Amino acid sequence: MPSIVANELELIDRYWRAANFISVGQIYLMDNPLLKEALAAEHVKPRLLGHWGTTPGLNFLYVHLNRVIKQRDLDVLYICGPGHGGPAMVANTYLEGTYSEVYPDISRDEAGLKKLFRQFSFPGGIPSHVAPETPGSIHEGGELGYALVHAFGAAFDNPNLLVACVVGDGEAETGPLAAAWHSNKFLNPQSDGAVLPILHLNGYKIANPTILARMDDAELTKLFEGYGYEPVFVGGSDPITMHKQMAETMDLVLDRVRAIQDAARAQTWSGERPRWPMIVLRSPKGWTGPKDVDGKKVEDFWRSHQVPVSNARGDAAHRRILEGWMKSYRPEELFAEDGSLLPELAALAPTGTKRMGATPYANGGLLKRDLALPDWKNHAVEVAAPGQSMGEATRRMGQYLRDVITLNADNFRIVGPDETASNRLDAVFEVTNRVWMEAIQPYDVELAHEGRVMEVLSEHLCQGWLEGYLLTGRHGLFSCYEAFIHIVDSMVNQHAKWLKTSAELPWRKPIASLNYLLTSHVWRQDHNGFSHQDPGFADFVANKKADTVRLYFPPDANTLLWVTDHCLRTYNRINVITAGKQPAPQWLTADEAEAHCRAGAGVWEWASSSSTSQEPDLVMACCGDVPTLETLAAVTILGKALPDLKIRVVNVVDLMTLQSHTEHPHGFTDEAFDALFTKDRPVIFAYHGYPYLIHRLTYRRTNHRNFHVHGFREEGTTTTPFDMAVMNELDRFHLVLAALKRLPAFGERAATLETTLRSKLEEHWAYVCEHGEDMPEILNWRWSATS
Amino acid sequence: MPSIVANELELIDRYWRAANFISVGQIYLMDNPLLKEALAAEHVKPRLLGHWGTTPGLNFLYVHLNRVIKQRDLDVLYICGPGHGGPAMVANTYLEGTYSEVYPDISRDEAGLKKLFRQFSFPGGIPSHVAPETPGSIHEGGELGYALVHAFGAAFDNPNLLVACVVGDGEAETGPLAAAWHSNKFLNPQSDGAVLPILHLNGYKIANPTILARMDDAELTKLFEGYGYEPVFVGGSDPITMHKQMAETMDLVLDRVRAIQDAARAQTWSGERPRWPMIVLRSPKGWTGPKDVDGKKVEDFWRSHQVPVSNARGDAAHRRILEGWMKSYRPEELFAEDGSLLPELAALAPTGTKRMGATPYANGGLLKRDLALPDWKNHAVEVAAPGQSMGEATRRMGQYLRDVITLNADNFRIVGPDETASNRLDAVFEVTNRVWMEAIQPYDVELAHEGRVMEVLSEHLCQGWLEGYLLTGRHGLFSCYEAFIHIVDSMVNQHAKWLKTSAELPWRKPIASLNYLLTSHVWRQDHNGFSHQDPGFADFVANKKADTVRLYFPPDANTLLWVTDHCLRTYNRINVITAGKQPAPQWLTADEAEAHCRAGAGVWEWASSSSTSQEPDLVMACCGDVPTLETLAAVTILGKALPDLKIRVVNVVDLMTLQSHTEHPHGFTDEAFDALFTKDRPVIFAYHGYPYLIHRLTYRRTNHRNFHVHGFREEGTTTTPFDMAVMNELDRFHLVLAALKRLPAFGERAATLETTLRSKLEEHWAYVCEHGEDMPEILNWRWSATS
Repeated sequence: MPSIVANELELIDRYWRAANFISVGQIYLMDNPLLKEALAAEHVKPRLLGHWGTTPGLNFLYVHLNRVIKQRDLDVLYICGPGHGGPAMVANTYLEGTYSEVYPDISRDEAGLKKLFRQFSFPGGIPSHVAPETPGSIHEGGELGYALVHAFGAAFDNPNLLVACVVGDGEAETGPLAAAWHSNKFLNPQSDGAVLPILHLNGYKIANPTILARMDDAELTKLFEGYGYEPVFVGGSDPITMHKQMAETMDLVLDRVRAIQDAARAQTWSGERPRWPMIVLRSPKGWTGPKDVDGKKVEDFWRSHQVPVSNARGDAAHRRILEGWMKSYRPEELFAEDGSLLPELAALAPTGTKRMGATPYANGGLLKRDLALPDWKNHAVEVAAPGQSMGEATRRMGQYLRDVITLNADNFRIVGPDETASNRLDAVFEVTNRVWMEAIQPYDVELAHEGRVMEVLSEHLCQGWLEGYLLTGRHGLFSCYEAFIHIVDSMVNQHAKWLKTSAELPWRKPIASLNYLLTSHVWRQDHNGFSHQDPGFADFVANKKADTVRLYFPPDANTLLWVTDHCLRTYNRINVITAGKQPAPQWLTADEAEAHCRAGAGVWEWASSSSTSQEPDLVMACCGDVPTLETLAAVTILGKALPDLKIRVVNVVDLMTLQSHTEHPHGFTDEAFDALFTKDRPVIFAYHGYPYLIHRLTYRRTNHRNFHVHGFREEGTTTTPFDMAVMNELDRFHLVLAALKRLPAFGERAATLETTLRSKLEEHWAYVCEHGEDMPEILNWRWSATS
Repeated sequence: MPSIVANELELIDRYWRAANFISVGQIYLMDNPLLKEALAAEHVKPRLLGHWGTTPGLNFLYVHLNRVIKQRDLDVLYICGPGHGGPAMVANTYLEGTYSEVYPDISRDEAGLKKLFRQFSFPGGIPSHVAPETPGSIHEGGELGYALVHAFGAAFDNPNLLVACVVGDGEAETGPLAAAWHSNKFLNPQSDGAVLPILHLNGYKIANPTILARMDDAELTKLFEGYGYEPVFVGGSDPITMHKQMAETMDLVLDRVRAIQDAARAQTWSGERPRWPMIVLRSPKGWTGPKDVDGKKVEDFWRSHQVPVSNARGDAAHRRILEGWMKSYRPEELFAEDGSLLPELAALAPTGTKRMGATPYANGGLLKRDLALPDWKNHAVEVAAPGQSMGEATRRMGQYLRDVITLNADNFRIVGPDETASNRLDAVFEVTNRVWMEAIQPYDVELAHEGRVMEVLSEHLCQGWLEGYLLTGRHGLFSCYEAFIHIVDSMVNQHAKWLKTSAELPWRKPIASLNYLLTSHVWRQDHNGFSHQDPGFADFVANKKADTVRLYFPPDANTLLWVTDHCLRTYNRINVITAGKQPAPQWLTADEAEAHCRAGAGVWEWASSSSTSQEPDLVMACCGDVPTLETLAAVTILGKALPDLKIRVVNVVDLMTLQSHTEHPHGFTDEAFDALFTKDRPVIFAYHGYPYLIHRLTYRRTNHRNFHVHGFREEGTTTTPFDMAVMNELDRFHLVLAALKRLPAFGERAATLETTLRSKLEEHWAYVCEHGEDMPEILNWRWSATS
């Protein structure tokens, strides 16, 4: 590579000043963008909102990345960990021309600059953070911790991509970020792209120093060498010296990346995990901003975090500081009279899709190819009659996923915390492996340098990798223990917000849905107990925008297959599938499953003792595999004891059907809902999760006052599967008891049955305490039609 | 310290074998505990549930800690990161005698052993994990990631405590654990205890190797030296060699701990951060268990994770493996004929509260001292008339907390992610500092080696430190941005489960409540926008057991003071207080605030145009500071336009009053509820968070069908505060419009008002888009009684 010449450094410095100027302008000004007039109060926004502190560092890195992109013709995705440094990303995508292409009313002249400044953190304008609105971004950065894991997710299966990932030293204190450094143990230098982490130590958070910035270089070197990287340090504050250092360092680390990839992609690669380079940049927080304001240290201190000169509209002295600060960038050396960037500076930026703001990797929908999907019916369970055959739902799903992997070798991955096999998806290992870049021993099983399955004991890494993978145009599935998906609540939240906002921007193309399989669920935590019992993720997800979220509870294998296939075809959604892995009775044939799932919910005539046209005495509703089993068992008990009782069985697969169609696109109309649940009959509803969710979804429905929901009521321990249901009154006996309470017409007979069932419950408890397993009549119970 | 003699090692080995024997017995046997008869099918449990893999390592560490406790007369708390290794903790607390003291029916003889074995993972027995039921534990370990952060929390302000913290190599992959190593930057060697991390590399998770175990010692050394520790390695599999290594290593590291503490506690300490020692233990997973089963590698591989011989009841060959395995511990060398531990082995355990199972640090309620609390009324805002004075609620709370800190110098801490000052609690810095063990610069502010405030940019660390601190008998508060408390959803979940179960155990004494201040809330995220806007933590918490959770929404400073004072007096609860930090009108005097908060919810007569005895035409209800302000503004508009409309204003502070008293101890009876909300009048309810929560809490109430709830509907960005309310229809204009829709009797006049308000909304939007701030009539609006 050619060495850096002084002239180039001076140009780089001017470009950087232009970005800094435009960043400050966004935070402060609503008029007079080029400071052609003396700065007056009315030029300054009344509410100053934004974050200056991190911005000059982000600008510094952007211009240096521009340099190497041009020199080496690279595809680079810039992940801006300190996403609150929004002004930097906006300034740079504006300078390189992307911004005006995406938003033509923000032109590359004085009028455009004025609009650009004004719109920032302004009603009707753009958010203060790097957001979906910001070209070139897949990462909001508002909730800190996920920059690096997004970067790795983007790099997987993108061998020609370099992901430059700026990690702030605040963010570096978070758990997810601290774990994400280990992602290098999962990056294959042959078939994946490269991640260049840039740890930006600007020393301070909102009101504190940062842990990592106060560590010395020796300790930092050990830490990152321990993580498996080769850290290269750049530090100081004199601009030209820093430009020289950074340009040389970029050359050095990119040569290293190239060498690693060349070696790995030669046929002679030993398979040894490479030590990828990273940059540690020490630069002052609020670099080039005011050194002191009101006698207090600002530059190189936490006081520069947000708006360093806080009263520039109301206080003339503050305004003079601001004006002096902006003029210190010498705008006359940066912009032509018309406000356009001077040509010799504009020439520094890459062109076309090489611009970081215009790379299609940051608008993944542009790159997305639909999955080639096998026919799920090839994997369907034979169901001669409902409840007669047993099957493991997730095992069938695994067979289907195996074929998905075969048909989509480079754009589909499964992530999960070490549970793909224990969740019985292990058929996938017939065609792929777990990816693993550390040593592999001869006795290891299904581990390889290349694999479609990624397992790590961190839900944060699983979630973040998959988000990065989806956001850059690929597909995937996260298989997780139900209880522990709460670990990533907040990440899901941010992804849902990203999807919601992206969908409102015509230039952002839809990406594949975020798909979850939640299994090893609350009702079957045989080995673990209370800590592993929580079905509340559904409640969390249900609060998100209706356009985005779907909750599926397939009751058996064929319904699970249909739902999986369906979810893999959707885009811009969060699909949550909850299904058990244990052997369980199978209810529906493939065709019946398809019809039932398409409807979302429906009457199971074969299990009902009243026909659909007939008004029943009682509705027994169920949602989830264990609730469905218990409901059908309850129906049998009722059918035997009270043969004249007209029962309707309703099964719900798609929970959002319960909501009104005015609130959710899958919601039933009131007419459709009433047709299922009646207007006035008692409904005993057995639900997989917390009962409140059913009430919150149905409170406006005609018959809601007659809904009696049984579900998880936060009672749990290590016990037998049936006893778990009993503890929470979701078992067949309690469901029948609940029904009897609402059937006064059956007087004596109901009372007799109640007595029988109460003694059954006692018998159950005595039995499990003696034998440690469920009674044979429970274990061996099979549905048979009573008719 | 005396060197280790061979006889001692042999005794240690026998003790270890006894623990291993008892661990295996728990997993497998329901009878024949000492194998006095040949092992028969009926001696084996029908369902084999538990985790063997980690257990021998935990036992190994326990006996070595016993040795040093006795030799050095230490107080040691054992944090068992791999909490699924429950059999180990049960075995050891049984061997040392604690278990039989806590549970007298589990005697120290053959009959007791039989019960001990049988009860494990058995209905009516104990969970498979280390749980509240396990003496000596403050840590469940079921959800991995929090062992080390709990350990540090326990060590703070306990200068004489050594916390031995076993971190599994699976757990070490999680984000929270990876960040927790940095807790050493917050541990003061003078006034805090010591944490001895023991990284246990047994190589495998459920079905994979672990990242850290496959790193070589050189890379691990760098990593942990980089984190600031001095790692000492112990590795191998030959028991006696390993006992010798571990005993020597324990001596070495405890000498180092002593030297660090002596140096720091001498007056000559430089203040330099010590490099605390840690142990890295490499031992085989399933150590001493079957090497191979059915021709497959088990010991030293992931197949030993749970139950290595899976069919010992049904398969005679498996049963022989089990029998041989248990006999390999030579029970005849461990137990007397009556099943009691041989005296020379029993003598190895410490006695009394020095036993790790009996340390009061693991039953924090025993050590808890009530806080000395100042009179909150000393900090109350003067309120001459409602709405006439402005105040910042959290600033008053900060003044109160300052006095709490002064009065409780060694058992109260505030944690938070770098936001104590920005959340306006900075009065606390008049009497304390932020604790910080890295370098402190002359220009740093409120940083010191000792401080009651702990700030780190990791909600996980904040939460985990505080949990550890509370569980060992102290008090605290977590102040957090509202949106980002979701980061710790899952930790809160586990803590709630711990509290729920602990409360059912008479020997576990109540601990101080986990108190949250959620501020910088959804309605005032001026600098940040959508990513920082989420009020859903309340929904999450509301799913937990009613005995445990409380949700408070004080509308002003005096109510916030009362609620804070109240929460600091409670125990075994999770109290969530949501309150803004911005200047806002003050409504209630101290006395009024007290009466209102004690009731939990009530009519604000001064704001109502109907007296309480009179049936109103309309109820305007509010919960939260911004909703209260907007509701009162709406009431003013209605009062002016429709002076004959009888409005009742209801304010809710304690959200759980809305639930039925049959479901929550704070819930109102239906009579009380109807008295507030009427039986049939329209209720326009302005709520701080997602509207669904109000519906889910009130769906059984008489008047529920007339509840119209406005709240956050997932619309947000960086905009003006009032515009945020408008985007979500929580503003005064939309509240009035909602009321008008339900007041058909006001015909023409209502229609006219509606037209006015719709044009107001347009005027608002035009104004903010031009000026970037709210209209003066909004900014300057103050309540004044219309009467």
